[in-house]
Amino acid sequence: MIDQLIDSIEKLQNPTVVGLDPRLGFIPGHIKEEAFDHHGKTLKGASKAFYQFNREIIDEIKDIVPAVKPQVAMYEQYGYEGIKAYMDTIEYAKDRGLIVIGDVKRGDIASTAKAYSDGHIGLADVEGEKIEVFKEDFITLSPYLGYDSIEPYVTDLNQRNKGLFILVKTSNPNSKEIQNLTVEGELLYERVAKLLKTWGEAAMGDLGYSRMGAVVGATHPEDAKRVRGILPNTFFLVPGYGAQGATAEDLIPNFNKGGKGAIINSSRGIIAAYKNEKYQKDFDSRDFAKAARAAALDMKKDLQRVMD
Amino acid sequence: MIDQLIDSIEKLQNPTVVGLDPRLGFIPGHIKEEAFDHHGKTLKGASKAFYQFNREIIDEIKDIVPAVKPQVAMYEQYGYEGIKAYMDTIEYAKDRGLIVIGDVKRGDIASTAKAYSDGHIGLADVEGEKIEVFKEDFITLSPYLGYDSIEPYVTDLNQRNKGLFILVKTSNPNSKEIQNLTVEGELLYERVAKLLKTWGEAAMGDLGYSRMGAVVGATHPEDAKRVRGILPNTFFLVPGYGAQGATAEDLIPNFNKGGKGAIINSSRGIIAAYKNEKYQKDFDSRDFAKAARAAALDMKKDLQRVMD
Repeated sequence: MIDQLIDSIEKLQNPTVVGLDPRLGFIPGHIKEEAFDHHGKTLKGASKAFYQFNREIIDEIKDIVPAVKPQVAMYEQYGYEGIKAYMDTIEYAKDRGLIVIGDVKRGDIASTAKAYSDGHIGLADVEGEKIEVFKEDFITLSPYLGYDSIEPYVTDLNQRNKGLFILVKTSNPNSKEIQNLTVEGELLYERVAKLLKTWGEAAMGDLGYSRMGAVVGATHPEDAKRVRGILPNTFFLVPGYGAQGATAEDLIPNFNKGGKGAIINSSRGIIAAYKNEKYQKDFDSRDFAKAARAAALDMKKDLQRVMD
Repeated sequence: MIDQLIDSIEKLQNPTVVGLDPRLGFIPGHIKEEAFDHHGKTLKGASKAFYQFNREIIDEIKDIVPAVKPQVAMYEQYGYEGIKAYMDTIEYAKDRGLIVIGDVKRGDIASTAKAYSDGHIGLADVEGEKIEVFKEDFITLSPYLGYDSIEPYVTDLNQRNKGLFILVKTSNPNSKEIQNLTVEGELLYERVAKLLKTWGEAAMGDLGYSRMGAVVGATHPEDAKRVRGILPNTFFLVPGYGAQGATAEDLIPNFNKGGKGAIINSSRGIIAAYKNEKYQKDFDSRDFAKAARAAALDMKKDLQRVMD
């Protein structure tokens, strides 16, 4: 799937992934009213509102971006109803040709990691019946537990053509507390990057990149430069652009030459664009998905400026 | 809730938490048959089988152990149907007086972490309606992202009397790859323990322990000894006993004096005891829950041997 992601970015000339991280505060009144009229102000009502919101966004962006990244926490907060909306969103996006990165940041070991792999990117086995459950193309994982929290995914990566993005250097302010500690003459995230380089060799795609990618934030360009130096053949999923403060210029160290090797996430900057002053004059809340499209096109232009 | 956990361990004289980590291979034939007859070999069928299995275990152990720890991966692999079984299991256990530790190992930041907190230990807000969703008493978290992945939980810890267990030193063989790196003259898990010591001061209970506990494996007693030295006022959730290889003697460094300050997990050693040669002569598969009770009582005896 890493090869398809690279192809799709190339075809669309757009290394953007749209973060589908809805909050009720982002959902236009008419969608909430319909959901709450049918289901009440319940977990199901909120989940149905998310799904309707996502569908309209997906329909407007599916021809201009290669991928979407639903953040599972936003759905999981509403329990199994929310998880159903997460799963329905993945299916809807895939049916419309989008690549789906499930931002789940799971991290567990052995049979537990295997259960996550089976459910998210593999096949669950119900007494011999093999069932595809969540259906993400990629998921994100945390590395704190070491390789026995990664290895159980390798079979699904290779046999089912799936992908991972493993947290190396995250975009949040406190990421330095642990990730930037000095370990044996280098920073911890550099050590994690070196481990990932070795781990990733077990799952190489055909276009020179591993199926095990890295999450490397845009908010710390110096750190990104070091990680890119260690991991030339690793694809980066890059959070932090836009609402979290990173500019297009900050992204430069995350890319390989010619703007290759990375996909940049924007969540609320796109999905909640209709609430942004810049788009409010042209789009009202009923046109929220068209505003998202306009914001995604503006982002594409902004990225292309720095990709050469 | 940390105070209630301490009280309950004291009252029952048993620092055991039963890991409710079902797999279909652990579920007796008669339970599977009934579930699959009603729902087919589907995600729902598997989830219903898990829930029935858990209920019978809970009924047999509720008067001898203080807590259960469902591992969400085992349920999540079956999608929203599995998550429903996870939620139903939590509710069933709480209704029978057990404390519930949700082993979710989430780790994310800011609004995302807040969403996990709202859903798991807080209240989800659906347009002004406040809804308790997962209802765990404690959940486990990963520390790799730093304090902005922990801080969003603090309000729920204090205002709703909930708890966390944060991964410090895990029980798996590869845990050393990252956790035992030397950082600035100490091991990484020691640094994480020191951070947790500071973080935990924001959420102290009334009995001398913080509402932010630590996950410290039993399989590395030397490491546990160091962590205990750094964290005298932190409650430990200890995996690794039994099926993972640690003995009761290995647990000694995890406890404070008098066998205080820690709760020891056993999962398949208890819930799948009926498959163990030791219990097979007395219990057939229809008596799986009674076998679990016998194994839990044997574990209690084994732990008491070393707690003085």
